[in-house]
Amino acid sequence: MIAVDANGADEGAATVAAGARAAGVEVMIYGPAAEIGDGPDVVDAPDWITNEEEPVRAVRSRPQASVVQAARAVAEGRAQAVVSPGSTGALLAASMLHIKRMRGVHRPAVALLLPVPGKPTLMLDVGANVDVRPEHLVQFAYLGAAFMEAVHGVERPRVGLLNIGEEPTKGTEDHVAAYERLAAGPLEFVGNVEGADLVAGAADVVVTDGFTGNVALKTMEGTAKTVATAIGDAIRSGVISSLGGLLIRRRVGALRRELDPNTTGGAILLGLRGVAVVAHGSSSAEGIANAVRLARRAVDERMIERTAEKLRAAGVLRSAPAASVGDRHG
Amino acid sequence: MIAVDANGADEGAATVAAGARAAGVEVMIYGPAAEIGDGPDVVDAPDWITNEEEPVRAVRSRPQASVVQAARAVAEGRAQAVVSPGSTGALLAASMLHIKRMRGVHRPAVALLLPVPGKPTLMLDVGANVDVRPEHLVQFAYLGAAFMEAVHGVERPRVGLLNIGEEPTKGTEDHVAAYERLAAGPLEFVGNVEGADLVAGAADVVVTDGFTGNVALKTMEGTAKTVATAIGDAIRSGVISSLGGLLIRRRVGALRRELDPNTTGGAILLGLRGVAVVAHGSSSAEGIANAVRLARRAVDERMIERTAEKLRAAGVLRSAPAASVGDRHG
Repeated sequence: MIAVDANGADEGAATVAAGARAAGVEVMIYGPAAEIGDGPDVVDAPDWITNEEEPVRAVRSRPQASVVQAARAVAEGRAQAVVSPGSTGALLAASMLHIKRMRGVHRPAVALLLPVPGKPTLMLDVGANVDVRPEHLVQFAYLGAAFMEAVHGVERPRVGLLNIGEEPTKGTEDHVAAYERLAAGPLEFVGNVEGADLVAGAADVVVTDGFTGNVALKTMEGTAKTVATAIGDAIRSGVISSLGGLLIRRRVGALRRELDPNTTGGAILLGLRGVAVVAHGSSSAEGIANAVRLARRAVDERMIERTAEKLRAAGVLRSAPAASVGDRHG
Repeated sequence: MIAVDANGADEGAATVAAGARAAGVEVMIYGPAAEIGDGPDVVDAPDWITNEEEPVRAVRSRPQASVVQAARAVAEGRAQAVVSPGSTGALLAASMLHIKRMRGVHRPAVALLLPVPGKPTLMLDVGANVDVRPEHLVQFAYLGAAFMEAVHGVERPRVGLLNIGEEPTKGTEDHVAAYERLAAGPLEFVGNVEGADLVAGAADVVVTDGFTGNVALKTMEGTAKTVATAIGDAIRSGVISSLGGLLIRRRVGALRRELDPNTTGGAILLGLRGVAVVAHGSSSAEGIANAVRLARRAVDERMIERTAEKLRAAGVLRSAPAASVGDRHG
């Protein structure tokens, strides 16, 4: 069972419900029955937490909010994963409160599959943690590698540390320390990667703090849009024939969609005791269905258990034996 | 007189010399006479500091290196600015040792004019300072604004702080503190800008730490290249007529050049007591000439004095009255 929060999407709750039902897996939809309609797969939950609210406070004070109810369903074993097209902060806060962090994990991270044509690259963190210590970066590496292995079938994912040069001494002291620990561990660590490598498929997993990750992600989106727009303008200005223009315009449009992170099915929260997926707020029904399928796949492939095992084997957990980590979903 | 370091360019010292001489201003060239030839405008200086060397140590131990000689010419009043196509780190180290920091400036920054079509945007720092405090970010803002005003004739440049959201509370504690000080000062502060704003012309000056700036810059370059290449591939695959393909291919090539930071004449070091410009290492003779003209313009427009005055008036200098700042070049 996947718990789907129907609130917070640009296209409205009915579109989210339609997408969730089209995913081909068992779902429970938390949203306004007035918009979705009644049904055995609907829990009426009109209240929701917007992007503008302070997430931790909102989640604590409004247990009836749809994202909180959906997260609680996972915590109480009524569902195995939660999907929300609403505020990432609210889903993270609700997940931290109810699903909880994986034992020994410092901080969960928001991971996003970058739309690199033909070379999906997972970047994390992209926003949850603006200040990180080396041990956080190291855990992010294992969280990301476990996800790519379990959910995307990448054997021995290549992990890179986002930095400003290839040499192990580059970056801040924290980067140097993280580099050392990653190089000494059992991961397939390819060393430092740079901004240009993000779109070049140089690594399967790129590790960074949430501040740099967010800036890099938005810079990538903005640049792709600017270049595609400039080329579209050149075409419309009539430098080529109308037939040629039509064809190339279609190709530019397709490429821009290909490079649009909205099409990759959303972000995933890693380091929790359950699966939580953020569907992009502007998702179509198909986008929601993709996010639900991603969540289902993470459950079926035992991502949580495999992540816990990976962290334990590498000796990067915060403290205490990790034997019980993820047991709830075992 | 502009002191030009002829070593370190991909195209060789002779190309640098040709470019420097083509700039139309008085130059003194420091490089290997064996390659450049003798002349009244040449100082034989075959030794140079590569990108691979630790810059501070290399600069201190090799006073005969061309970049060190060129920086010393500025420090001793024989030249008014230095231009180098070699290692940015070496030019910065040579400038710190000989030209010295502007009084009251915490740290010089490397500033780069981003190739935003029609909306030149200065980003700083792009690599010199990976760890910064709020007072550093605040000084970067005034250094960048003074440069855009003096050298690019932008009246009241709009200054933005690179961050992960618009709200004043976004980012690290250091960002929040820098935001507060910038908002309280006399600058035209437009608040936080995000990654996507870098290429959208949302500000004339974008302030950030050297780590984030470097990652954003390289992400921008990599993404522009990937998008342009993908479009070029689509064209070559024959989806449009050969005439149309030729025309659009030219347009894509022009756009890629437009978005290439190498064409903007290089980076400039701000916060020194003299003008220091980094010509991109892959510059053509014309690129070198542009860098030399940029340096000349910064001298003619009294950039150093205007910067010192701006910092003093805003009360953001580290200590002591700034009356003597920049006097050497007054």
